Amino acid sequence: MDAALTYAREHRAPFVRELIDLVRIPSISTAPDRAGDVMQAAQWLAGHLESLGFTARVEPTERHPVVRADWLKAEGRPTLLCYGHFDVQPPEPLDLWRRPPFEPTIEGDTLYARGASDDKGQLFIHIKAFESILRTAGRLPVNVKFLLEGEEEIGSPSLPAYLAKHRRRLQADAALVSDGSLFAPNLPTITTGLRGILYTEIEVTGARRDLHSGQYGGVAPNAVGAAAEIVAALKDKHGHIRIPGFYGRVRMPDAAERDAWSRLPFTDADVLRETGADVAPGEAGHPVLDRMWARPTLDVHGIAGGFVGEGMKTVIPARATAKVSMRLVPDQRPERIFLQLTRFVQRHAPPGVRVDVRQLAMAPPVLVSPDTPAVRAAARALEAVYGTPPVFTRSGGSIPIVAGFSSTLKIPTVLMGFGLPDDNLHAPNEKFALKDFHRGIETVIRFAYNFADRT
Amino acid sequence: MDAALTYAREHRAPFVRELIDLVRIPSISTAPDRAGDVMQAAQWLAGHLESLGFTARVEPTERHPVVRADWLKAEGRPTLLCYGHFDVQPPEPLDLWRRPPFEPTIEGDTLYARGASDDKGQLFIHIKAFESILRTAGRLPVNVKFLLEGEEEIGSPSLPAYLAKHRRRLQADAALVSDGSLFAPNLPTITTGLRGILYTEIEVTGARRDLHSGQYGGVAPNAVGAAAEIVAALKDKHGHIRIPGFYGRVRMPDAAERDAWSRLPFTDADVLRETGADVAPGEAGHPVLDRMWARPTLDVHGIAGGFVGEGMKTVIPARATAKVSMRLVPDQRPERIFLQLTRFVQRHAPPGVRVDVRQLAMAPPVLVSPDTPAVRAAARALEAVYGTPPVFTRSGGSIPIVAGFSSTLKIPTVLMGFGLPDDNLHAPNEKFALKDFHRGIETVIRFAYNFADRT
Repeated sequence: MDAALTYAREHRAPFVRELIDLVRIPSISTAPDRAGDVMQAAQWLAGHLESLGFTARVEPTERHPVVRADWLKAEGRPTLLCYGHFDVQPPEPLDLWRRPPFEPTIEGDTLYARGASDDKGQLFIHIKAFESILRTAGRLPVNVKFLLEGEEEIGSPSLPAYLAKHRRRLQADAALVSDGSLFAPNLPTITTGLRGILYTEIEVTGARRDLHSGQYGGVAPNAVGAAAEIVAALKDKHGHIRIPGFYGRVRMPDAAERDAWSRLPFTDADVLRETGADVAPGEAGHPVLDRMWARPTLDVHGIAGGFVGEGMKTVIPARATAKVSMRLVPDQRPERIFLQLTRFVQRHAPPGVRVDVRQLAMAPPVLVSPDTPAVRAAARALEAVYGTPPVFTRSGGSIPIVAGFSSTLKIPTVLMGFGLPDDNLHAPNEKFALKDFHRGIETVIRFAYNFADRT
Repeated sequence: MDAALTYAREHRAPFVRELIDLVRIPSISTAPDRAGDVMQAAQWLAGHLESLGFTARVEPTERHPVVRADWLKAEGRPTLLCYGHFDVQPPEPLDLWRRPPFEPTIEGDTLYARGASDDKGQLFIHIKAFESILRTAGRLPVNVKFLLEGEEEIGSPSLPAYLAKHRRRLQADAALVSDGSLFAPNLPTITTGLRGILYTEIEVTGARRDLHSGQYGGVAPNAVGAAAEIVAALKDKHGHIRIPGFYGRVRMPDAAERDAWSRLPFTDADVLRETGADVAPGEAGHPVLDRMWARPTLDVHGIAGGFVGEGMKTVIPARATAKVSMRLVPDQRPERIFLQLTRFVQRHAPPGVRVDVRQLAMAPPVLVSPDTPAVRAAARALEAVYGTPPVFTRSGGSIPIVAGFSSTLKIPTVLMGFGLPDDNLHAPNEKFALKDFHRGIETVIRFAYNFADRT
């Protein structure tokens, strides 16, 4: 293990150079014209894993491919399933990036690029950790299966079926996912819960065509106005979501978990510093960490339709589309919430418009017990590298596949992220601290040995 | 006069060919990169008027030029000020046009192109009428001043100052404006009222940057959500505008005018046929013509911000801009309404966002008495050409300059439009019936002679 750690320290520069090659690929999964780039990222990773001694291949799905790679020569040792995603969010708005999103630049000890933290930089931590062991010990202390996908940012539509179909080939003792962040700088963190997601598109149709507001103002339905009414109706003034039944199955964390959260170095002031807003609006009556991790939320992401260019156009829009998603918590079920939302939207559509609610993605919420051999192995590795024991937190985000690992493969997942809370995920100027890239590699090296010992 | 009418009938084909040259110019006044095209349309018109015997020139304003042309040799005769605008609305959405918007096409007796009806085709009626008289009689029966602008579709920002500055040079006995439509096919129409307009942009700013809804859902302000709330708050469920004081100065038409409206061939079913909607939503308790002509209205034209592309992006938008305009009626004053709106929006901004309300354009409402020599001359001309006396209606739209003719020049305006209600103004597939183009020319020839006789 020590040789591997030394190797990792001595190869920091080439590791970063390789990561830069990977983040340079604009593998935006939601953009139809970027499908070739997503494929290129898949092939790059498969080739890279092959060169390290894995048997790797790119496997097609209905949309973007999966990369599968195995090293299974540790007979009698446990098997680890390493998950990551090589697709990225769209970089828009481009004008807010200080450097082009796919021309990675290093400032100080920080790498700036779309995908640097989410998730190319973090999946690369796993790869470089196993490289460090293989290049020094010649073999891994555990069996390792990589499952890397290109559809995470569009809700992993293909992965549940893939997981179900290949459940035997993917069987493992635990999964390892690094697609999150430390709770605070230098504070190692293991995540024990993820919110689910239900992402929808609400389409509103009014008149046959766009109309002139002089001619028809007062007698024509306004699709953008109707979309605004529907979106506004979804929450009340206290931030409560007004969909009947929405909170019916919400299960709050127990006293011990909330007590641990209350000791975390985090206050409302931290939220304000991170968001730059004057207040942290949200559901009244719940502290911020509850609102971020344990309460369901709803956000509108954009309303398309009408005229939004420079200047004026006196149009009554005939059509509008609102993108609305909800973050869900145990034990909410996305399918059920989708039906409740659809009923609510239909009932709140103003006269003169028709509405259609489409589901773009869904993932159930998931909880991971902190009391498993894999999580304990991870905790020991984190403490060794960071010099302090990890905190156990939840995440407000969703990693759809983790629910699949739990329900389909019946294995626990170690959620150990190495980003920072202000990494600008899904926003301009995404970044990744290289210090944590390197600490992450050392942590995963230690984790592999710790996990091997558990049997 | 008969010679001029004959000339007009014999030159229908070349008149249409010339109009096609004019509508081919993409003079979109709101698009900064189309300024050259707006100038080209101005120069085309000035050159054309020069060739007919007018003294014409293109005069700069702060943004788009004005075309001024005079024929003032009818000593002792009244003077007519002919207004029109050569700028057009943006053509978007382009994919809904059956033919490109600036490649004019004729189908049957209808010309399809952006600007065909609004207003190039109609200002060209005036020009071709005076050409017909000049080419046959060698002189006009009245003095004629042309005032053609290139900023009508952006709210005529330069014209009030231009009018004030040149009020002596523009002095006339009446103004003639053809920038509207017949009330119904074959039904000649004189407009006696125009709604005013207040066009605003509401900017909402929340967090410092776009945020990830997984990370910050529940604690971050959502600018698009806030814009939706504000827009939704502007009207109640009955279509009443909720801005305090908004209706304070609304003066309803008298019984005689509303009685005349009730005899017009127009029902709710006509609105539904024209808009293609199931119902004609609007302010409860007012018949459709009241809502279109005599009641103030409010419409949102679009909400920019966040993610509206294909697919999904889980962003909490940091910034949003809503374009909102109001149509105003006598005696509402746009300046006052702007202050009321601003106060309302500030008060309804949800916690965590800042709002800024900007005024993009305003024009006061205007009424024109039907009882003036000019309007009577127009009524006789319309009856002679269409075989039936005109109806007197109002228009829900705004022609900012008409208020200026009334308040600055102290002259009445003849509002005599030759479009049709379904001309797709400000929408895809704008069209103009050539039959009414030609009837319009004959009407204006007759009007000029009728008006000359009034002294």
